[in-house]
Amino acid sequence: MESWQFSQGVHPNTSKLAIEPMASEASVPKREGFADLVLQGPEPPSLWYELIGMLRKAVRYRSADKHFTLSVCAMSILHSLFPILEWSKSYSLKSFRSDVMAGLTLASLSIPQSIGYANLAKLDPQYGLYTSAVPPLVYAVMGTSREIAIGPVAVVSLLLSSMVQKIADPAIDLASYRKMIFTVTFLTGVFQFAFGLLRLGFLVDFLSHAAITGFMGGAAIVIGLQQLKGLLGLSHFTSNTDIVSVTRAVWVSVHEPWHPENFFIGCSFFLFILGMRFIEAIAVGRSFSVINGYKLDGNKEMVAMGFMNVAGSLSSCYVATGSFSRTAVNFTAGCKTAVSNVVMAATVMVALELLMKLLFYTPVSILASIILSALPGLINVHEICILWKVDKMDFLTCMGSFLGVLFGSVEIGLSVAVGVSFAKVIVHSVRPQVQILGRLRGTNIFCNIKQYPMVCQTPAVLTTRIDTSFLCFINANFIRERITGWVTEKLEEIRSVVLDMSNVVNIDTAGLAALEELHKELVSRGIQMAIASPGWQVIHKMKLAQLIDGTGEAWIFLTVGEAVEACLANKKGGDLEC
Amino acid sequence: MESWQFSQGVHPNTSKLAIEPMASEASVPKREGFADLVLQGPEPPSLWYELIGMLRKAVRYRSADKHFTLSVCAMSILHSLFPILEWSKSYSLKSFRSDVMAGLTLASLSIPQSIGYANLAKLDPQYGLYTSAVPPLVYAVMGTSREIAIGPVAVVSLLLSSMVQKIADPAIDLASYRKMIFTVTFLTGVFQFAFGLLRLGFLVDFLSHAAITGFMGGAAIVIGLQQLKGLLGLSHFTSNTDIVSVTRAVWVSVHEPWHPENFFIGCSFFLFILGMRFIEAIAVGRSFSVINGYKLDGNKEMVAMGFMNVAGSLSSCYVATGSFSRTAVNFTAGCKTAVSNVVMAATVMVALELLMKLLFYTPVSILASIILSALPGLINVHEICILWKVDKMDFLTCMGSFLGVLFGSVEIGLSVAVGVSFAKVIVHSVRPQVQILGRLRGTNIFCNIKQYPMVCQTPAVLTTRIDTSFLCFINANFIRERITGWVTEKLEEIRSVVLDMSNVVNIDTAGLAALEELHKELVSRGIQMAIASPGWQVIHKMKLAQLIDGTGEAWIFLTVGEAVEACLANKKGGDLEC
Repeated sequence: MESWQFSQGVHPNTSKLAIEPMASEASVPKREGFADLVLQGPEPPSLWYELIGMLRKAVRYRSADKHFTLSVCAMSILHSLFPILEWSKSYSLKSFRSDVMAGLTLASLSIPQSIGYANLAKLDPQYGLYTSAVPPLVYAVMGTSREIAIGPVAVVSLLLSSMVQKIADPAIDLASYRKMIFTVTFLTGVFQFAFGLLRLGFLVDFLSHAAITGFMGGAAIVIGLQQLKGLLGLSHFTSNTDIVSVTRAVWVSVHEPWHPENFFIGCSFFLFILGMRFIEAIAVGRSFSVINGYKLDGNKEMVAMGFMNVAGSLSSCYVATGSFSRTAVNFTAGCKTAVSNVVMAATVMVALELLMKLLFYTPVSILASIILSALPGLINVHEICILWKVDKMDFLTCMGSFLGVLFGSVEIGLSVAVGVSFAKVIVHSVRPQVQILGRLRGTNIFCNIKQYPMVCQTPAVLTTRIDTSFLCFINANFIRERITGWVTEKLEEIRSVVLDMSNVVNIDTAGLAALEELHKELVSRGIQMAIASPGWQVIHKMKLAQLIDGTGEAWIFLTVGEAVEACLANKKGGDLEC
Repeated sequence: MESWQFSQGVHPNTSKLAIEPMASEASVPKREGFADLVLQGPEPPSLWYELIGMLRKAVRYRSADKHFTLSVCAMSILHSLFPILEWSKSYSLKSFRSDVMAGLTLASLSIPQSIGYANLAKLDPQYGLYTSAVPPLVYAVMGTSREIAIGPVAVVSLLLSSMVQKIADPAIDLASYRKMIFTVTFLTGVFQFAFGLLRLGFLVDFLSHAAITGFMGGAAIVIGLQQLKGLLGLSHFTSNTDIVSVTRAVWVSVHEPWHPENFFIGCSFFLFILGMRFIEAIAVGRSFSVINGYKLDGNKEMVAMGFMNVAGSLSSCYVATGSFSRTAVNFTAGCKTAVSNVVMAATVMVALELLMKLLFYTPVSILASIILSALPGLINVHEICILWKVDKMDFLTCMGSFLGVLFGSVEIGLSVAVGVSFAKVIVHSVRPQVQILGRLRGTNIFCNIKQYPMVCQTPAVLTTRIDTSFLCFINANFIRERITGWVTEKLEEIRSVVLDMSNVVNIDTAGLAALEELHKELVSRGIQMAIASPGWQVIHKMKLAQLIDGTGEAWIFLTVGEAVEACLANKKGGDLEC
């Protein structure tokens, strides 16, 4: 009933609106209804205003409390920095029991992995264990996530060693290499802390998921190949990380004596761990959806991670972060709060005290198989298939960073990932972005003639839509040439050109110049140009650049329908077949 | 009359369309009319298809002739490569007389400028004159423009010397510096030729006009400062091009003996030339508009310029191009065809033969004043004022490249120009790009509530428009968070969210993931999500990613109006105040 009233209210008015301007037969259309709204709108916010607004929003966010007193403010900052103050109030013995179980499970996985990853970072085993002990304690106090498991991870370990060993070779001077690693860890922490504090967490989005998928896959293969040294018991190997160097090193070594006993120990342990992971895969999938549904403040997390890495670097730890596979284990083991991280850290410390001497004698091939077992999770073939199916450009991004890591180096892979991601945005701004529109028979709806082939066109009026949100130096000339090209093709039929600019949110001086030039070209051929629905910034800048005086106020409309009808009314004898 | 028929045909149908779906009271809206068109459209062209289409278009362009025989084809290629074959047919004695006059005027300006610019390029005077002789002859045969004056220009001379002297110092080994300059000229020609042949001329657009304005202004000031050496007759100077080094060098030299006679000769000549240019300024302005109206094929021009520089490099010329100021003079002197360039080249050759010895004794201060006189035309203060007024971002781009040249070096200025231009495109993709829409009272037109404050909103339905043409990794999360933020603010009122995606031309996998997540979040709060008018690629990729199954086919509409009405019909008791 209400809907009916609603539609009754709408359409008689709409048709009234449409009839009146069309009845006019003057060469400048008589404007009633809504057309003038376009020109009379308020000014859009300036660049400075927007910048100040963004700053104010960031500050306001911190002092959102209404009863603003000094103690309340201090408490709110304390609570925001240390979420433990919040959740510890309602912490129960039952939760503690679950957390202890989860923490012990976590430790059983963390201890061998930490030793393996320390090996990958070209550090002694104890540094991996330190990294599994100190940062989790800091995170438990400052972090917001309940399930996340903190510690060293494979890809970061590889990144660290491959970058730092260019400055300090661990084979020559292990002490200065170690110092360099701790410095990098410290700086990582400082950057994370600063980014979180300045609310720059969104910058993480700049590395697209497709690029990360490719990078991880490539890194996993490179790490795997490097483990061949340990697995095959080779004595000579390369420190390069690209697939060509590693394959050549393996090939050379095959002709030298090697140690099959290492190979058999490693392989059997690898198969054992892989068997354990068939169980794990389900858990990962389940936890993934849950973790996604869980609301975290990315900026706060960055502050916590930053502080944890700064603290870590001062206590001989290297870069720690959340491990995806161990987080899944933590979740399935039934953790309730970050106390599971504390339990794990405590267990690792005990292991450090008691088992350190034993751990030193872990065979290299066992370490290699531990690392290898964590790798299949990093190669997400399913995701890559989806990328290929859904978006070829994303697939190219993914393959670019994958091949960059595999055949170049970790840095090349990262640069390719960032470069291709940004190139995609640029390429999208450059690609052909003008469409010819047609009217859906019997309506005022105008659609792309290719997407909706059933629409009909009025030969006398070329209706085009500029399909870019930023008409700028990179595409303005292209779009102008495309439109004049269409006009030249059908010069005898076309009497007016309607530019639907509803998609153009912003414009720069090159875009304005292209519009002006297009108008001049059309006028010189005796063709009328009408503009429909320009964006807020666009109409404002057109006023500033005095472009409105050129095109004529009367030829700017709120809707395409109005513009087309004004053009038809203007050029008598226009074809009116739909 | 015709218009009236037209509108009669339109609106009864529109209102019929609107009434029927609204009469339905089921929770899944009954779909009639146009809503299903969105899902039933044809597939958009794939990436490969588009690439092949682009290639085919480039090839077809060359064989557009309908009567395609070998001889016709050869003739058309010849005519296209050598436009002289075309215009020489109708060349008259009257045109020749005009061209001779223009050519002689041009030569009187070219000879001193060529010597000055050769000095700027750190070459002997004759090389500047060679560059004013050979390339214009080649251009006359191959170029399409009639007015353009070919020869050395100030900014290119500075660029060349500042870049090449990093590899070969002209003060130490002039011969190898010269060889390097010719090699660079040769390569410039090869690149121009290749770019033109591959139709990559559009790449020139990538350096925005704003960036070039800033770069030119900065370069002009740097060139001017470097002329102080000649003008003041200083013996010690710096070869750096940044303002700090040059100012320091002048400051140091002030305390040393200098040659006031040089200063007076140079200054009086400078004032004389400046006086001549008050006349010229008007001509430049006039010619500019005409040159703009004149139709040139940029790719063909690049082929001609490339060939001319290759030929030049083989005959001891350095990089030549079209000089803006001399083109204006050529035009005002009444040139008719490229023959004026031939006349100028011949005059320059005669001057080389007869006056070479005299020219060698031109005082350095005169050369400096010649160069200085050409500089004010490069600093376009008016253009910079317009940039400030119309577009602050373009002004920043301009200032970035200006300060880059001034305080850094020519290369830094160029990199800043390119970098800032591209950053602008990226920043625009990241900036806040969701708007809340309201309905214009009594119509089916939905507008941004900030741009059109008179629109009214329906509290139960949050209508938003995604104002980006590429919903991708760089903005997808931002947009999702913005929408959920609005929903959280008014959680009690909102029952449906309508996403107007008419502006979204393309989407990547990150964008699809964000849409899916948004849908999940809204569903978990009991809110219905409806999508209106997704672009061609968007609906195709949503199908591929099986996102349609998630959101429900029934909740995708062709127009915002249909979507809002379906939402209102679905949630009975919704507020219907407008």
